[in-house]
Amino acid sequence: MRRIKLTLQYDGTDYSGWQVQPDRVTIQVIVETVLRKMTGEETKLLSAGRTDAGVHALQQVASFDTASQYPPEIFQKALNGMLPRDIRIISSDYAVDDFHPRYSAKAKSYFYLIDCSEIRNPFLGRYSYFCKYRLDSKKMIKAAACLIGRHDFSSFRASGCGARSTVKEIYGIEVKQMNTIEFLTAGFSGSFIRISVKGNAFLRHMVRNIAGTMIEVGRNRISPGGLRVILEARDRKLAGPAAPAGGLFLERVFY
Amino acid sequence: MRRIKLTLQYDGTDYSGWQVQPDRVTIQVIVETVLRKMTGEETKLLSAGRTDAGVHALQQVASFDTASQYPPEIFQKALNGMLPRDIRIISSDYAVDDFHPRYSAKAKSYFYLIDCSEIRNPFLGRYSYFCKYRLDSKKMIKAAACLIGRHDFSSFRASGCGARSTVKEIYGIEVKQMNTIEFLTAGFSGSFIRISVKGNAFLRHMVRNIAGTMIEVGRNRISPGGLRVILEARDRKLAGPAAPAGGLFLERVFY
Repeated sequence: MRRIKLTLQYDGTDYSGWQVQPDRVTIQVIVETVLRKMTGEETKLLSAGRTDAGVHALQQVASFDTASQYPPEIFQKALNGMLPRDIRIISSDYAVDDFHPRYSAKAKSYFYLIDCSEIRNPFLGRYSYFCKYRLDSKKMIKAAACLIGRHDFSSFRASGCGARSTVKEIYGIEVKQMNTIEFLTAGFSGSFIRISVKGNAFLRHMVRNIAGTMIEVGRNRISPGGLRVILEARDRKLAGPAAPAGGLFLERVFY
Repeated sequence: MRRIKLTLQYDGTDYSGWQVQPDRVTIQVIVETVLRKMTGEETKLLSAGRTDAGVHALQQVASFDTASQYPPEIFQKALNGMLPRDIRIISSDYAVDDFHPRYSAKAKSYFYLIDCSEIRNPFLGRYSYFCKYRLDSKKMIKAAACLIGRHDFSSFRASGCGARSTVKEIYGIEVKQMNTIEFLTAGFSGSFIRISVKGNAFLRHMVRNIAGTMIEVGRNRISPGGLRVILEARDRKLAGPAAPAGGLFLERVFY
């Protein structure tokens, strides 16, 4: 058996997330189905991050074991030939035997995109959260700093989260306010905020819960100092609602 | 009666184009329906360009007459509140009585986006044409020059085109090869070609027929000089197929 590492990119809008679920079209199900067609084997894909329904990936990493003798680039070509156009294998390689997309990862980065323009951008509905309130990005920047470092992130954990430890480390968080955004070859003016987070690992919905709480800070419903109080309380009820999935991108997995 | 000028932006993917058609969801139908809800009047919208099904607009201009006394900015706000998220009114103004979005326009510009990357980009399927062949952009640039100026564009006219005159003037055409494209805040590497055209007016499918023929030039199936021969023959059968609608953007209308 050989282990193959795939790097994927996908527009998650039309899928029920990464992970296999009964009666749902998920990205894992689709890629496993296509792999089975190719090799005849029942294959189980492991991934670096189990993205939720509607979440996108600029770089997701997955691996599987196979007895087939196809070189990795043939997997890439053949899978891309069969996959729907919103899921792509952008690279394919051999992996060492003990490689695990999630446990071997040193860090992952996500970003969350908010459109808080006066007029909602008609092209960004799938890729951002439209917030009809003015957001004070300076307060969001100020608030974010307290999240950096090793903390118990229970306050930002989804109810169904099964992680054994709620202690994770955030290496960096950046809140960036932009007055134009590039979309294809056109520049759109408006008001956009991108929250980028890099950490060693994340609890379920953690980035969306952080983004949702940061939006409350931007709306002046939670003070910048209040974010630290919420973090230290380790109580999910205190944080803001999870920001909608469409604004979230799994950006990169670091090994 | 007062005349109101609307500037619209839309993602055309999910619509059967601009113009009213029986049993089809078109952008004109949707905006007229929403206007009727607002004013109680039967309103007919005129537009600068009747974009085809799947074609996008960064700037479409439309006008209508109304007996209602709402100021233009109220039209913008109220319509945006009722329109689907992929159609937006980006501005609204009074227009002079003889303003006509199409006949008053001095020029219009369109661009056509081709993704000829080795791996099809999963985010650009709605907004570009994926061409699996390597395209020689230098040949396309060379070929394009002959289209500039006043010509009979019969060779690039759709079969159902009802224009009285097939003589139009192209003010400029630019073919640009790009190795990265900005999408939201991410840069995608690959190979992309954008064909931008500005002219006084366009025949039905003219830009898509030009793009389709230019793709044939890029594939070395038509020589750069062959494009001039096709233009001068005034025979639709000689030109390449219309490039798919999704890659086309109505960019701007000039008054």
